[in-house]
Amino acid sequence: MSSFEQMWAELASVGRAAGGGYRRFAWTPTDATLREWFAATARQRALDVVRDRAGNLWAWWGEPDAAAAAGRPGLVLGSHLDSVPSGGAYDGPLGVVSAFAAVDRLREQGYEPRRPVGVACFSDEEGARFGVACAGSRILTGTLDANHARRLTDGDGVSMAEAMRASGHDPAHLGRDDETLARVGTFVELHVEQGRGLVDASGGEGAALGVASSIWPHGRWRLDLRGRADHAGTTRLADRVDPMLDLAAAVQTARTAAERHRALATIGKLRVEPGGVNAVASAVTAWLDARGPDADDVQALVADVGTAAGVAPAAESWTPATHFDAALRDRLADLLAGSDGKAAPVLATGAGHDAGILSAAGVPTAMLFVRNPTGVSHSPAEHAELDDCLAGVRALTRVVEHLA
Amino acid sequence: MSSFEQMWAELASVGRAAGGGYRRFAWTPTDATLREWFAATARQRALDVVRDRAGNLWAWWGEPDAAAAAGRPGLVLGSHLDSVPSGGAYDGPLGVVSAFAAVDRLREQGYEPRRPVGVACFSDEEGARFGVACAGSRILTGTLDANHARRLTDGDGVSMAEAMRASGHDPAHLGRDDETLARVGTFVELHVEQGRGLVDASGGEGAALGVASSIWPHGRWRLDLRGRADHAGTTRLADRVDPMLDLAAAVQTARTAAERHRALATIGKLRVEPGGVNAVASAVTAWLDARGPDADDVQALVADVGTAAGVAPAAESWTPATHFDAALRDRLADLLAGSDGKAAPVLATGAGHDAGILSAAGVPTAMLFVRNPTGVSHSPAEHAELDDCLAGVRALTRVVEHLA
Repeated sequence: MSSFEQMWAELASVGRAAGGGYRRFAWTPTDATLREWFAATARQRALDVVRDRAGNLWAWWGEPDAAAAAGRPGLVLGSHLDSVPSGGAYDGPLGVVSAFAAVDRLREQGYEPRRPVGVACFSDEEGARFGVACAGSRILTGTLDANHARRLTDGDGVSMAEAMRASGHDPAHLGRDDETLARVGTFVELHVEQGRGLVDASGGEGAALGVASSIWPHGRWRLDLRGRADHAGTTRLADRVDPMLDLAAAVQTARTAAERHRALATIGKLRVEPGGVNAVASAVTAWLDARGPDADDVQALVADVGTAAGVAPAAESWTPATHFDAALRDRLADLLAGSDGKAAPVLATGAGHDAGILSAAGVPTAMLFVRNPTGVSHSPAEHAELDDCLAGVRALTRVVEHLA
Repeated sequence: MSSFEQMWAELASVGRAAGGGYRRFAWTPTDATLREWFAATARQRALDVVRDRAGNLWAWWGEPDAAAAAGRPGLVLGSHLDSVPSGGAYDGPLGVVSAFAAVDRLREQGYEPRRPVGVACFSDEEGARFGVACAGSRILTGTLDANHARRLTDGDGVSMAEAMRASGHDPAHLGRDDETLARVGTFVELHVEQGRGLVDASGGEGAALGVASSIWPHGRWRLDLRGRADHAGTTRLADRVDPMLDLAAAVQTARTAAERHRALATIGKLRVEPGGVNAVASAVTAWLDARGPDADDVQALVADVGTAAGVAPAAESWTPATHFDAALRDRLADLLAGSDGKAAPVLATGAGHDAGILSAAGVPTAMLFVRNPTGVSHSPAEHAELDDCLAGVRALTRVVEHLA
């Protein structure tokens, strides 16, 4: 069994949910188990584990501070271990496990890097618990304010600060962490593809691996739809103020406006109060996820949904388009060339990633995608073939050989 | 302070929820507190407290079994103490407190009933936790099967049997309880009105009290809308199977079909899976409450909603029209006549009640309504003026004097 398969098997049971998916929310006991696994896996490889102010974990091969001081900051691989509710096994863990497996291959080959090599595990990438995606990398780079982050609450009213404290991370030190950022000369995140770009690549022939060109502008908005609680059996239709009707208009407009503006829009999370079968709702909160190739189109779509629902959408997050380092992108596409010498496919994606946050903060950054046969992600059905995963490990190995 | 006000104050803090309303779900610690209050209040009045097989509580003045054997079964007043989520203070407790207050008045007057007088507290009238309204009276009368009831589950997967056991009621004995029913010669439920019928009565002059003629046919249906979980940022609109769109169609059709069929329809409770901001929902469960003067119209409306949503609605409960005992209804309307000698208003209602279940089971049953100035119910804003409540107590006193 390869070290990749060994690690994959170790993670398989952590945070397993009914229905076959994973529920690995940030700063929960499940998350703590995943962090312990990361630290133990690093220690087995004699890598030094450091936790930054934001709570992200870094495993270092080499001396990152000395190297940074000498003008040779490290090459970091990695991704995240948390998940959406009922998430798949690959989104996040594939990047972390592949990074450790690449280190193993390099060690076996007797490779000695000239600059430090790191494996990163970012905290709370999905934002499934506190509503802000890439919270760990946003805090690290200062694009998510520490006070704002500490006060974010989950569905049970628990703040991020309380959740961190319960998990043994002191939230008092949250904030941009320049010491950590100085260690990162280059970041390369390997990730399962979340669409069918690689399946359909090369005229349908397909490709096991690809390189990211950019991340679409994307954001999350909250629609606070207000109504008046009333008895479902006695309140005349004409007397009702039912926010469920505004929700219906928002859902339908999200679809039609997305088609019109060539973008994507999704309402996948709701809160209904009081939530009784025989009561007209007093309030419905709906979350709108919107993205697309063009930022103006996305904003126009969000405005259309607000108009339909009769509210001003409240932006919970907004990330402009991210264009990854062009030279690095082209170099990786060449490195991943097939036996025919053709460079690997270069793809844009609608999914946000920590790599996008680091890139926006000025870190030379690239992403590698591993083929997803169905394109399905954020679902228990998310999948990648073992052969493609191992091709990803070999690709990361070559990346380190050429960049470190 | 009247005994009514005293009891009202005792209940004011039990199950109080954020937002000013009440959360008093069946077979919870809050429910246990309400049951202890009922038993203590009965004991203070030297009434015998009995719990029936379904878990309903009965406080007796007199010897109900001896009287039933002698062909003089008791006259029972009462209602329920549980609530919907964020419910009002009056729906349920007004009937129980008014019944005890009427007993107090009768005692003060030295009244000696010729047949036993009971105060009833029905379990789980709202069905807010396990989905079936009037569960206590339905189990008592055998219209809710005991095995089915035991297996009903709440939102956390706790079965009614487990919840009863945790509250000290053995669910093994659930089932139609003929011994209890034999004691009930007549049942009169006083309830806050849940519409503006009494406010608008007598050409807008209004009336403090009214008498129920009937309860509309009503039911609850579950719509199981299936989709496929997918990543919100990477799945093309055309590739999605998003059950949220079916929900939107169901909500809008529920409104338009209700208007067309002159009925009421409400979707006030939803469950969205997995419920992630950045995931297309894999499933949406929506509950439809529908009622109206005509059963065929209600069934047609439910069928329209199912067609719009692309599913067959699953009936969770259905109660045909209830027509209360006509002679009793007319007698109470006369008893409640104003000083002008005009009989009290007689009203139909869209709200289900334990009185409806007992009436359908053959118990001579009546309902008194107390004016609700706004008509709002199932909401923290639900209200009745103290003067109207005390008029209700006096009316129950006269009812006992004439019927017991």
